[in-house]
Amino acid sequence: MAIELKELTKRSVNYSEWYNQLVVKADLAEQSDVRGCMVIKPYGYAIWEKMQRILDDMFKQTGVQNAYFPLLIPKSFLSREAEHVEGFAKECAVVTHYRLKTNETHDGVVVDSAAKLDEELIIRPTSETIIWNTYKNWIKSYRDLPLLCNQWCNVMRWEMRTRLFLRTSEFLWQEGHTAHATREEAEERARLMLRVYAEFAEKYMAVPVIQGVKSETERFAGALDTYTIEAMMQDGKALQSGTSHFLGQNFGKAFDVQFLNKDNKPEYAWATSWGVSTRLMGALIMTHSDDNGLVLPPALAPIQVVIVPIYKNAEQLEQISQRVQSIQENLRQAGISVKYDDADNKRPGFKFADYELKGVPVRLVIGARDLENGTVEVMRRDTLEKETLPLDGIEARVQQLLDDMQQNIYRKAVDYRDARIYECDDYEEFKQKVKQGGFFLCHWDGTAETEARIKEETQATIRCVPYGYEQTPGVDMVSGKPAKCRVIIARAY
Amino acid sequence: MAIELKELTKRSVNYSEWYNQLVVKADLAEQSDVRGCMVIKPYGYAIWEKMQRILDDMFKQTGVQNAYFPLLIPKSFLSREAEHVEGFAKECAVVTHYRLKTNETHDGVVVDSAAKLDEELIIRPTSETIIWNTYKNWIKSYRDLPLLCNQWCNVMRWEMRTRLFLRTSEFLWQEGHTAHATREEAEERARLMLRVYAEFAEKYMAVPVIQGVKSETERFAGALDTYTIEAMMQDGKALQSGTSHFLGQNFGKAFDVQFLNKDNKPEYAWATSWGVSTRLMGALIMTHSDDNGLVLPPALAPIQVVIVPIYKNAEQLEQISQRVQSIQENLRQAGISVKYDDADNKRPGFKFADYELKGVPVRLVIGARDLENGTVEVMRRDTLEKETLPLDGIEARVQQLLDDMQQNIYRKAVDYRDARIYECDDYEEFKQKVKQGGFFLCHWDGTAETEARIKEETQATIRCVPYGYEQTPGVDMVSGKPAKCRVIIARAY
Repeated sequence: MAIELKELTKRSVNYSEWYNQLVVKADLAEQSDVRGCMVIKPYGYAIWEKMQRILDDMFKQTGVQNAYFPLLIPKSFLSREAEHVEGFAKECAVVTHYRLKTNETHDGVVVDSAAKLDEELIIRPTSETIIWNTYKNWIKSYRDLPLLCNQWCNVMRWEMRTRLFLRTSEFLWQEGHTAHATREEAEERARLMLRVYAEFAEKYMAVPVIQGVKSETERFAGALDTYTIEAMMQDGKALQSGTSHFLGQNFGKAFDVQFLNKDNKPEYAWATSWGVSTRLMGALIMTHSDDNGLVLPPALAPIQVVIVPIYKNAEQLEQISQRVQSIQENLRQAGISVKYDDADNKRPGFKFADYELKGVPVRLVIGARDLENGTVEVMRRDTLEKETLPLDGIEARVQQLLDDMQQNIYRKAVDYRDARIYECDDYEEFKQKVKQGGFFLCHWDGTAETEARIKEETQATIRCVPYGYEQTPGVDMVSGKPAKCRVIIARAY
Repeated sequence: MAIELKELTKRSVNYSEWYNQLVVKADLAEQSDVRGCMVIKPYGYAIWEKMQRILDDMFKQTGVQNAYFPLLIPKSFLSREAEHVEGFAKECAVVTHYRLKTNETHDGVVVDSAAKLDEELIIRPTSETIIWNTYKNWIKSYRDLPLLCNQWCNVMRWEMRTRLFLRTSEFLWQEGHTAHATREEAEERARLMLRVYAEFAEKYMAVPVIQGVKSETERFAGALDTYTIEAMMQDGKALQSGTSHFLGQNFGKAFDVQFLNKDNKPEYAWATSWGVSTRLMGALIMTHSDDNGLVLPPALAPIQVVIVPIYKNAEQLEQISQRVQSIQENLRQAGISVKYDDADNKRPGFKFADYELKGVPVRLVIGARDLENGTVEVMRRDTLEKETLPLDGIEARVQQLLDDMQQNIYRKAVDYRDARIYECDDYEEFKQKVKQGGFFLCHWDGTAETEARIKEETQATIRCVPYGYEQTPGVDMVSGKPAKCRVIIARAY
């Protein structure tokens, strides 16, 4: 492993390659033999589980309930909402048959052509259609509203170029789908869920995000407004990390979901949908990690503390293990996850490199000498700083260190990002600077033409109109036309 | 709702219809517009979530880690294990294309024939093949073993006749897949996971189960041994509620998973797999519920206590609400989930019937008179018994009631089942009695012929050789041949 670690490409040499290697070397995920689909390995999945648990609690605190809707969607459902089908039908897995049979040479199986479906089924790329088809039966009166459902599930979009966690054909996510009696309530719910995502990203992932509204071009297919959180990676590129959509009455009308309002008159229900996915894993990895491997925020680290004994013989190991016992128990009682690694087939140096690679926040090393002196060597993963401390009361110090690190990596990420946000009013300057990454606050005339030209000439896209910038008039740097506001433009994942 | 409740068919009239109605009326699940696929509604999903959380903790206590493997399996993988393909290939959803396109009349979408897959992909009916294909790269040495992974996911088996929770084309489950260095260790793991399932069923679901081993005919396709837990429903039929398989080296050989043992010699890894699914919801519903609706074990009830105020005016409601406030807080602090239903658009009688239908374990009713007297009416759902108790200290009494009910419904289910387990040595007698349901402990000669004859003539199947009955020799009641043991025979879901 120490040897493999050396082979981790440095970020400065090739950031993209560094990411690809790190995901695999740190045992987070790997490509499967199924095109574009990944295997999430236990260590990676443990982080995702922590994310799920926290997000799920946050959703429930806003009144959301979980449910489960079918994986497969009848082809005709997709066509009901005109924009939606344009956005999703072009890249989906289609189920056409429901049986295999033994082949003629009896050494394999083939599709049984007699078992052809009357109507093809699509593996959900997102579930608005099947869910609103269901809501039709659940919503009759304003008293049935709001309806606030979420599901944790897998979805599939047939991607041509895939990267682990960032873009895979199958991915895991949650998708919330709410129905409301009024436009205002639905819009407020869409913004509320974006705030939940932003709070989660900043407080638990330690990833600072900018909240804003997407341009029409970048909107979810079928939405009237798409709200987004945008994070900056260490190469200055943007990663869209979560979106929340105000869908108006588009799906209410497409699936004829009407309710009787307080005046006993029929109205179409108002909708939102919102989702975050295993893409968050990519944001987490790329924001904090370094050339030695992962750096994980303590709040999401599967192992928060690792204890490594240094010993020359069984007697020394026994003494160290005895002393470590109570430290482990105390840490666990404080809700801290600890691993004591006394494996005898790996040298300490190997273990050190491995836990650095895996991003374990705190490492305690105890040798025979430490035991005599009543000390322990403590290393924090974010700065790699070591200090020797008294064994007595080490639990409190570890707790403090974890809190410090959570704050520190967040501050570091904020500083990094803020130093790379530029107000820019000159297109030539923009074209030069954008190559180095960063977020550019530029005036935009609001036209799709200008947006397309920027994208074509610079590969950068309008990420959002950030909150607070809705009313910042000026002159579009590209077209010279009047602009209502500044937008954030950046190259993005 | 009170009216709908009246329409719930009585168990004695039509048990099967009672079940179908109850699942829908209690808001647990419903059929979707996708053939054979169900929608799990929020109230049903909340029960499933509680099951998941508890089972997941139990798995982890035995060293299991969660991971995630692809939804889609290349067709050729299925053929690698000869028995496995026979068991699963005949009933699966086949993905043949990866794109739709707008049709010629521009009013819908059709499959894009240009986007045909080179090799068809199957939606996983179970994941042994894709997982062992992955394990090949993870297992090199005995030091990599045991490998203990589980995944919570959806699977799909194309069922012709479906019933909510009991048999659906898509269902949710967990599937554990372990790899071991020795046969003994793998066999012990298969039995260990069955014990975990049995403990979960009895302790949390309050469903008594019989643990045993399946006959060769009833084994999982590809297994050397299938262990099972079998529960008895209120119609005397068996419901297979969880299975754990010892797979030998079948998948190790099929996917060439070899490791170097301690003597540095290559060996094929030994395997187990084990799963429980949303079928458990069916077992839960059918074991305890009655003609008034659901009866839920307190350990799994989403709402454990409901409080209903009875009032004539806003002032009375205000007084009651104030008093209830502290009771709610105290119950919540004790980890009990409470709902205070002060909705003004439903009469108390309607609410009572609804919460009975939904199986809320404890109901507290407080009126203005109660407030004066310092009393509260308490009803327990299992026996429908009511008592009037002092408001002071009601929290402790509620806690005690919940514990009592958990025990009581378990004992009731044990008594019901034990009264319907018969030793039977006469086939004619068996044929008569089995129509009324029950578990029959009969000698079996071990042949598939006898097994098939019983099934054909009585629709009953061999459920298992129950633990403890492996060595109970005698004479087969059908063939008259020598039998090594008694087995449990029953009609089953």
